[in-house]
Amino acid sequence: MTSIKDVARDVEMSTATVSRALRGLQGVSEETRGRVMESARRLGYVPSPSAAGLASGLTRTVAVIVPRVTQWFFAAIVQGAEEVLRERGYDLLLYNLAGDASARHRVFETNLLTKRVDAVLVLSLKPSPDELDRLLRLGRPVTIIGADMPGWATVRIDDHEAASTATQHLLDLGHRRIAYIGGATEGVLDFTAPSARLAGYRCTLERTGAPPAPELEADGAFTVAGGLRAARELLSGTDRPTAIFAASDEMAIGALRAAQELGLRVPEDVSVIGIDDHEMASYFDLTTVAQPVHEQGRVAATQVLAALTDDHWHPEQVILPTELVVRRTTAQLRT
Amino acid sequence: MTSIKDVARDVEMSTATVSRALRGLQGVSEETRGRVMESARRLGYVPSPSAAGLASGLTRTVAVIVPRVTQWFFAAIVQGAEEVLRERGYDLLLYNLAGDASARHRVFETNLLTKRVDAVLVLSLKPSPDELDRLLRLGRPVTIIGADMPGWATVRIDDHEAASTATQHLLDLGHRRIAYIGGATEGVLDFTAPSARLAGYRCTLERTGAPPAPELEADGAFTVAGGLRAARELLSGTDRPTAIFAASDEMAIGALRAAQELGLRVPEDVSVIGIDDHEMASYFDLTTVAQPVHEQGRVAATQVLAALTDDHWHPEQVILPTELVVRRTTAQLRT
Repeated sequence: MTSIKDVARDVEMSTATVSRALRGLQGVSEETRGRVMESARRLGYVPSPSAAGLASGLTRTVAVIVPRVTQWFFAAIVQGAEEVLRERGYDLLLYNLAGDASARHRVFETNLLTKRVDAVLVLSLKPSPDELDRLLRLGRPVTIIGADMPGWATVRIDDHEAASTATQHLLDLGHRRIAYIGGATEGVLDFTAPSARLAGYRCTLERTGAPPAPELEADGAFTVAGGLRAARELLSGTDRPTAIFAASDEMAIGALRAAQELGLRVPEDVSVIGIDDHEMASYFDLTTVAQPVHEQGRVAATQVLAALTDDHWHPEQVILPTELVVRRTTAQLRT
Repeated sequence: MTSIKDVARDVEMSTATVSRALRGLQGVSEETRGRVMESARRLGYVPSPSAAGLASGLTRTVAVIVPRVTQWFFAAIVQGAEEVLRERGYDLLLYNLAGDASARHRVFETNLLTKRVDAVLVLSLKPSPDELDRLLRLGRPVTIIGADMPGWATVRIDDHEAASTATQHLLDLGHRRIAYIGGATEGVLDFTAPSARLAGYRCTLERTGAPPAPELEADGAFTVAGGLRAARELLSGTDRPTAIFAASDEMAIGALRAAQELGLRVPEDVSVIGIDDHEMASYFDLTTVAQPVHEQGRVAATQVLAALTDDHWHPEQVILPTELVVRRTTAQLRT
């Protein structure tokens, strides 16, 4: 069995330095740490993780709390975060809530404490005051992705602006009866994005002097099935909208399906735009406001690891850019 | 700070029993364990995980190795497994390889050893002899999902039969020029399903006296983009197939898109069938051979936890059923 002494001898350093490097503590240069890790790996050195955890208080594990890993958006963020964590020698503990409120309670009340993780990433959840208190008491760095939480480290897009871009695109094409599909996303997914997107839609309409109509706002629960249901309703009326802005691509894909069912052509009879640039968006020729999903995971993981190693770290609010991607589901209003 | 003695006093049991219950050791009934856990939670008892790990050798953590968490299929299996693990008080350590061979090496050579997990679930990877050796040396229960590995605990569908069902459906509709889109999936995803599905396709064609033609077999890499590329090629020739069987729904969705690009109508000009019943399949009206994805995760997690607690456990090969779901992308051959 390879010991820490064998590694120290191999790299010609003190066991104290090797130990600090292996445990990811400060005061060791990246170059030194790289040499130590390489040697440890080559020699087959395996630290006792429990003992290392007791000694340093570090577990080299980051918890990631995810609303629903089967949604591409969340999975893509997890993948981005995991890439960075792996590169830096950290493991990812996945807490997938899957829309289950009791799971959420258990994660915040028990799992995070018993596992004593080094840091926490929270995806698209707005923690309650009680949960924020628990996160604070952990005494560990926390980054929140996709929510606007002043005072906390966050990574997100400007949701208000993204919604405004989508609505303006439809206005520029001559549309005036523009429906909105958003939603509250089932209670456990109470992130701040839905309300910011709804506000962006309303403000942009109001600027044109065309105030938003309540009957044109529908709840699509941020799923394909919800978008389908909502669009079916919106498009079945007599005075139907000429365009639909869905606050996520999955809801937009549902809306495309609803149009098809009702014998409406897209974009001739109804234009549809989403937000995300979902991996399937191009296959549906969906016009959308693209956001850098994978990148949000990478940035958040980088930020939370910086908090672990940088004494001068302070929580930043990172806002990543979005971009209008025009494909074939939106067109000039026919008169 | 609540101690183990407080919990013992609350449930009127010995601290030894409470300790065994909290650490998930044998010799404690489920009912007793439930009472202890409930009390520990109510009183806010938080064990020191590192100390507990050292004492019992158990970490109450299960590693899940996933080829690519952004693919719905893998995410749905993870979600199923996580549900069962959470219900039973286990955490899920996610190793997402994302098509990266060096990540795979690191996981098998370093992470699994340093984390000393209680058990391992391997998704849709066929471990190499060296990796199998490392898994064996862990001395921990392992379940492999989606691969046929005699002697190991596995959960999968009968891939040969699923492919045969899809091919037979097309034959029954009168098709004879039936193309196959499969693929080797990038090296790191070398599971046994692709070869079993290809064999199922070929055998079924051969039974009809219509031997498979090499020019009708294409590589779609098990992605939408790969299916699109492969189908574009297949459908551009002069003597094009009248039907395409794609070995996954994502490739089938790519094939639908290729047909649309080329101005071919589905199912009038070309029939398309997949395997999976992907969450998007119904929105594409895709005919497919459905497999229980979420359920495979649940069954595998249940199996691997049984191995931890049941002295009489032995590795089982569980095969879950598939089912033909006929929608609107397949039709009778037009003559």
